[in-house]
Amino acid sequence: MTSTQLVSGVYAAALTPMTPNGTPDHAMVVAHCRWLLDNGCDGLAPLGTTGEANSQSLADRMALIKAIAAAGLPADRVVVGTGGCALGDTVALTRCALDAGYPNALVLPPFYYKGVTEDGLFAYYAALIERVGDPKFRLYLYHFPQMSAVPLSPALIGRLRDAFGDVVAGLKDSSGDWANTKHLIDTFPGFRVFSGSEQFLADNVAAGGMGCISASVNVTAPLAARVLRADPAARDRLQQDLTAIRMALQGFPMIPALKRILEWHTGNTGWRNVLPPLLPLSETAAGDLRRKIADFALFRDEIALAAAVD
Amino acid sequence: MTSTQLVSGVYAAALTPMTPNGTPDHAMVVAHCRWLLDNGCDGLAPLGTTGEANSQSLADRMALIKAIAAAGLPADRVVVGTGGCALGDTVALTRCALDAGYPNALVLPPFYYKGVTEDGLFAYYAALIERVGDPKFRLYLYHFPQMSAVPLSPALIGRLRDAFGDVVAGLKDSSGDWANTKHLIDTFPGFRVFSGSEQFLADNVAAGGMGCISASVNVTAPLAARVLRADPAARDRLQQDLTAIRMALQGFPMIPALKRILEWHTGNTGWRNVLPPLLPLSETAAGDLRRKIADFALFRDEIALAAAVD
Repeated sequence: MTSTQLVSGVYAAALTPMTPNGTPDHAMVVAHCRWLLDNGCDGLAPLGTTGEANSQSLADRMALIKAIAAAGLPADRVVVGTGGCALGDTVALTRCALDAGYPNALVLPPFYYKGVTEDGLFAYYAALIERVGDPKFRLYLYHFPQMSAVPLSPALIGRLRDAFGDVVAGLKDSSGDWANTKHLIDTFPGFRVFSGSEQFLADNVAAGGMGCISASVNVTAPLAARVLRADPAARDRLQQDLTAIRMALQGFPMIPALKRILEWHTGNTGWRNVLPPLLPLSETAAGDLRRKIADFALFRDEIALAAAVD
Repeated sequence: MTSTQLVSGVYAAALTPMTPNGTPDHAMVVAHCRWLLDNGCDGLAPLGTTGEANSQSLADRMALIKAIAAAGLPADRVVVGTGGCALGDTVALTRCALDAGYPNALVLPPFYYKGVTEDGLFAYYAALIERVGDPKFRLYLYHFPQMSAVPLSPALIGRLRDAFGDVVAGLKDSSGDWANTKHLIDTFPGFRVFSGSEQFLADNVAAGGMGCISASVNVTAPLAARVLRADPAARDRLQQDLTAIRMALQGFPMIPALKRILEWHTGNTGWRNVLPPLLPLSETAAGDLRRKIADFALFRDEIALAAAVD
């Protein structure tokens, strides 16, 4: 088995800053990724749900992979989202990531058809592994039934692990169902299970999981890192603070809200751009968000700057 | 307003025969489309749900559009499915169709994100029309909430019609909810509303709709054409026969079942190929299907051939 550096810890499902024309702003993407790596993130998961990957054209997704590689974002701290509905496109994106030096890929199930069979999903992932055809490739399954509407069952995971071993390296569980995450950790030794929210970070690592890959880590990374590294006595209180922030953010459309906070963090109004069908946060919601995050010491600098830029 | 030949009548949501490698078999595609046009179809809707469009790579979808144009399939009898999750890809596919001579396009909403706003969907379709930037373009909305999980509301349709007039030419209603179809026909004069199943064909045209765009028309076209052209006295009985066939087919995974019937029709086992996450019909289900369609005179030839090829 080829040795591929695997991923663990606090991962941000990295946001994608966009130009006003609706293409990724590579300079802002790289600057944001570097900030995350320097401020608590063990790694990054670009081009996931939070990165608006499925709203980007295939060409834009490939260009973004090449841009972060050209900027030198380290291979052992990146897992690239490469999943789409079409096997051919997913193969092309995964190969693009491998060619750029990123062997770890987070892959949604094909999500157009609903009610598909376990056999059909097995056939899809098996064909992906075979057609990618690179022994360095490590597949992280992406279980997000609320968004994909195509769940990945423990039975499917077991069949894939039996057939392909540690090539089927791990899973991001965005179901929000801790019992499911715990069951996967307990059932598949050596399988690298991430929670989809830092709300479960302490529980995840205590149970033997690998950490979290989360949208809100784009703004909570410094605190999430403290939770991960705290000694057990201090961890619970820090986790409570982290969870309170996550819960507050969940009251808003997540991606536009996170982008607005990063506008307040950087002073760059380019952060306001999102791709349809998402829309920028309304000014009313932005005001509500600003009042809400003012409750948390973590956002002291952002609140100060928000007063200047809004 | 540029004059674009609009579509109406019995339309097949054309199946896409595939090679064993999982790419469209252009010779089989063209032969099947010609057979449909010669055997009851007023027109074709390739690259929809039934055509496994969202399981095909972007490059394969574009190549198929060029292939049917090169074969001379008539522009006034084709509405091409060009919808994907990413606006950029949908623009590219729609332009590809226009460049190939096909101005009528059937466009899904972006279907990855769920629970998106009416404003966000309006922004998506508005940006599509603006970025396609061709006065010949005619947009047919594709309402299929069971599959896309992103419904298109009457309020959204009204806003798009108000903003873009007859460029927003029509809609395929695959909800299976006749009350919704009827409401759209009654509410938007001049808007071309198709039912997503030939089960509603007689009701649709009686109410002032444009006909149907249906998966099962791939095998029921000769009978559906008779329903459309029957005088009112004969229409009800023919519609009952047509509906009975549609209901029988709905008991099977639709796309693999239709492909199996076309294998029996043509003797070409290439019809068995589907793209993951779909799977070919199991032999048990194929046997059940064969017994089921033996109830209908329409399939006399297929049943005879099935005995030889199975």
